[in-house]
Amino acid sequence: MTRESDTRQRIVDGARHLIYGRSYHDVGVAEICTRAGVRKGSFYHFFPSKQELSLAVIDEMRIGIDAGVLSPALAPDVAPMQRLARFVERLYDFQRQAAPAPGHLPGCPFGNLALELATSDEVIRQRLQSVFADIESRFASVLEEAVAAGEIDNIDIAATARAMLAYIEGVLLMAKTANDPELIRQLGHAVTGIRIHQGED
Amino acid sequence: MTRESDTRQRIVDGARHLIYGRSYHDVGVAEICTRAGVRKGSFYHFFPSKQELSLAVIDEMRIGIDAGVLSPALAPDVAPMQRLARFVERLYDFQRQAAPAPGHLPGCPFGNLALELATSDEVIRQRLQSVFADIESRFASVLEEAVAAGEIDNIDIAATARAMLAYIEGVLLMAKTANDPELIRQLGHAVTGIRIHQGED
Repeated sequence: MTRESDTRQRIVDGARHLIYGRSYHDVGVAEICTRAGVRKGSFYHFFPSKQELSLAVIDEMRIGIDAGVLSPALAPDVAPMQRLARFVERLYDFQRQAAPAPGHLPGCPFGNLALELATSDEVIRQRLQSVFADIESRFASVLEEAVAAGEIDNIDIAATARAMLAYIEGVLLMAKTANDPELIRQLGHAVTGIRIHQGED
Repeated sequence: MTRESDTRQRIVDGARHLIYGRSYHDVGVAEICTRAGVRKGSFYHFFPSKQELSLAVIDEMRIGIDAGVLSPALAPDVAPMQRLARFVERLYDFQRQAAPAPGHLPGCPFGNLALELATSDEVIRQRLQSVFADIESRFASVLEEAVAAGEIDNIDIAATARAMLAYIEGVLLMAKTANDPELIRQLGHAVTGIRIHQGED
């Protein structure tokens, strides 16, 4: 890694940690620079605006969640619906281990930013929408296999995938509000029972 | 209403509109004062801190959602599970008509604040948790009637009520991220199918 790409990476890592631990507007450029050990001039060399930094942070989180939670959970070594149950277990582990806000459950990094920024930053809203669309399409692939295997039938696959992601986002929201990871286990397993039937939506 | 209570009310109304339309940290005291037409000294007379103002805003929103959505939707003039379906319809209407962020779906005011502030403001987090606990207990009353009427059985009522609220919060999060109220209709009706069975949690 060159020194230049290392500096950029430290800025993104610092911003990701601080924003995920608190919120977008609660974290300023000066604090990010201090954490990353870079000067403001260097920051603006890489990121002309906080918005551009945030897009880089979202992309970084997307890679992290994919590698750490989504891909291992949805791997095809178990039956399709079991993969979704495993996804909930992985989320539980991730939320207990995530360290950006010590003593506090941090919730979904994408959901956090969506509820803070969707009304006021159209570029960030669209990026987050595309993250959710990706996760939905991963869920939809699992549901297609479940239908092919006869585990479920008569569902609108795309709408059910979306409903499942909505439920998971809601469970993480409730767990963050209660600051209690056990809610993820108490409620999360019901994700596999959610159905939007064909012709219903 | 005295002039003093009128001033206080204008501050709360202005803050509610601005914070619900954007976010807590994106709205400053100066902007709230301008909107409310009061001086900063007057603001701090009523609210020594932005946190105290926010608690007043949450309480005001709680009254508004109760009167405008929750109580009419859950009124006992229809069968229990139909009330929950009506709640989703009311939310759809409310989200289409809510005006704090023109052209943007504002989402749940409590969910928004929870994901922005739960890791960094323990007082606000606890207030929001109590709002959710109230809504859960309203849902639980409906579910008790549904069980008594034989509409459903074998559920953990408290956990199912919580799972239903989680789903609704998740649907509002997805609808806000997509900026599309139709998602509330597409996904919301599935709330009545969510079950946490006894002994499962």
